[in-house]
Amino acid sequence: MVDYELYYWPSIQGRGEFVRLAFEAAGVRYVDVARLPENKGGGTKAILRVLEGSDGLHPFAPPILKTEGRLLAQTPHILAFLGPRLGLVPDDEQSRLDALQIQLTIADFLVEVHDVHHPIASSLYYEDQKKEASRRARIFLDERVPKYLRWLERALARNGESKHLIGKELTYVDLSAFQIMVGLAYAFPRAMAKVESTVPLLVALRDNVASHRRVAAYLGSPRRIPFNEDGLFRHYPELDKA
Amino acid sequence: MVDYELYYWPSIQGRGEFVRLAFEAAGVRYVDVARLPENKGGGTKAILRVLEGSDGLHPFAPPILKTEGRLLAQTPHILAFLGPRLGLVPDDEQSRLDALQIQLTIADFLVEVHDVHHPIASSLYYEDQKKEASRRARIFLDERVPKYLRWLERALARNGESKHLIGKELTYVDLSAFQIMVGLAYAFPRAMAKVESTVPLLVALRDNVASHRRVAAYLGSPRRIPFNEDGLFRHYPELDKA
Repeated sequence: MVDYELYYWPSIQGRGEFVRLAFEAAGVRYVDVARLPENKGGGTKAILRVLEGSDGLHPFAPPILKTEGRLLAQTPHILAFLGPRLGLVPDDEQSRLDALQIQLTIADFLVEVHDVHHPIASSLYYEDQKKEASRRARIFLDERVPKYLRWLERALARNGESKHLIGKELTYVDLSAFQIMVGLAYAFPRAMAKVESTVPLLVALRDNVASHRRVAAYLGSPRRIPFNEDGLFRHYPELDKA
Repeated sequence: MVDYELYYWPSIQGRGEFVRLAFEAAGVRYVDVARLPENKGGGTKAILRVLEGSDGLHPFAPPILKTEGRLLAQTPHILAFLGPRLGLVPDDEQSRLDALQIQLTIADFLVEVHDVHHPIASSLYYEDQKKEASRRARIFLDERVPKYLRWLERALARNGESKHLIGKELTYVDLSAFQIMVGLAYAFPRAMAKVESTVPLLVALRDNVASHRRVAAYLGSPRRIPFNEDGLFRHYPELDKA
């Protein structure tokens, strides 16, 4: 019996990856339902069933967590719910409030990461909004990436010697900051090579998370879906810095 | 002595309005700090001081709530924190989880509302991205507005006869749904005239909230900043439906 079912698109990291990383780092068993074969209840049909079939509040979009008879949607909401259950957030109220606040800011950043390649509409192909994407990417890389990453750097700095964003141990927020850093490096390698020198604490956090025993095992396993151009972080060289 | 200080831009409704509505509906005293004169500690300088001066986690952006010696940022986070304190969410855990999930979905919708007039960058004027805005607006009004509003309509329908999104009484989520509906009607009157006929429960909720005694008093007071073209909901006739 597995306590946690995750419903997310089976061929991309996307927003689901922030939840997968929490399960993997905690070493907790979970089912990534849509990655099961269809004849075992998987595939994207499983997501559509959960979007349509709920008795209670129906989620707007994946990722969706099913646990304890509940459905939860919205990535920061899922992580704030899982944090205490997976030992991925400290016990005190202030730490939990701060963790969610950082996660919500990361969520805002992710919308901007996505909209770089889809500035006009998610329902259009990138190829149909390349010109607008190019314009948005320049300002995104010049202004927004440094602003968000330096904000995270400052949050690390105010947390003293801990090398974590919240408290003294690994939290779901650290895992999400890791994912942001490796995702941006995949999508914008030239721009990130420049920015990284300005956020040394964040780079160290990224490397610490990557070497965490269970995270490292996950990253080397087939469970980690490679980055690709259907996901949130897309490598279109023409959008990167010259 | 006032228990709650709100820090938000003094000349717009923006995201701060979702918090103002919660205070006003609850009849709780609060200080809208940046709307005080500068010689009383107000003005936008008050916001900059709070963004820069915190010992703990510094907020990324307004709205910011100061209470009980804490600073909280991110609108849904502030509302989830205030909900129990202001009597604007039921007591049971499932209701509170559902309320935050809806509020986070509304927050996603608000990003899209904003990006209609700023599809390339917040740091550019609308006039410098009008062409892209026009392209984005068509798809936003055809696809996204109906999708979000019908989702809210369905959430109302599954809550039976209560005429509220969560539980049986007014919550912060109802107030936010009201604000979305009046904001969209201000920005896109022609498009909304068409959509409204498809979401009767949501229209009824909007009207119920507007006639709530304390909300009605607030809406008729000088404390309610009029919609304007510096805010989230902007009326640019060229972006509305023909």
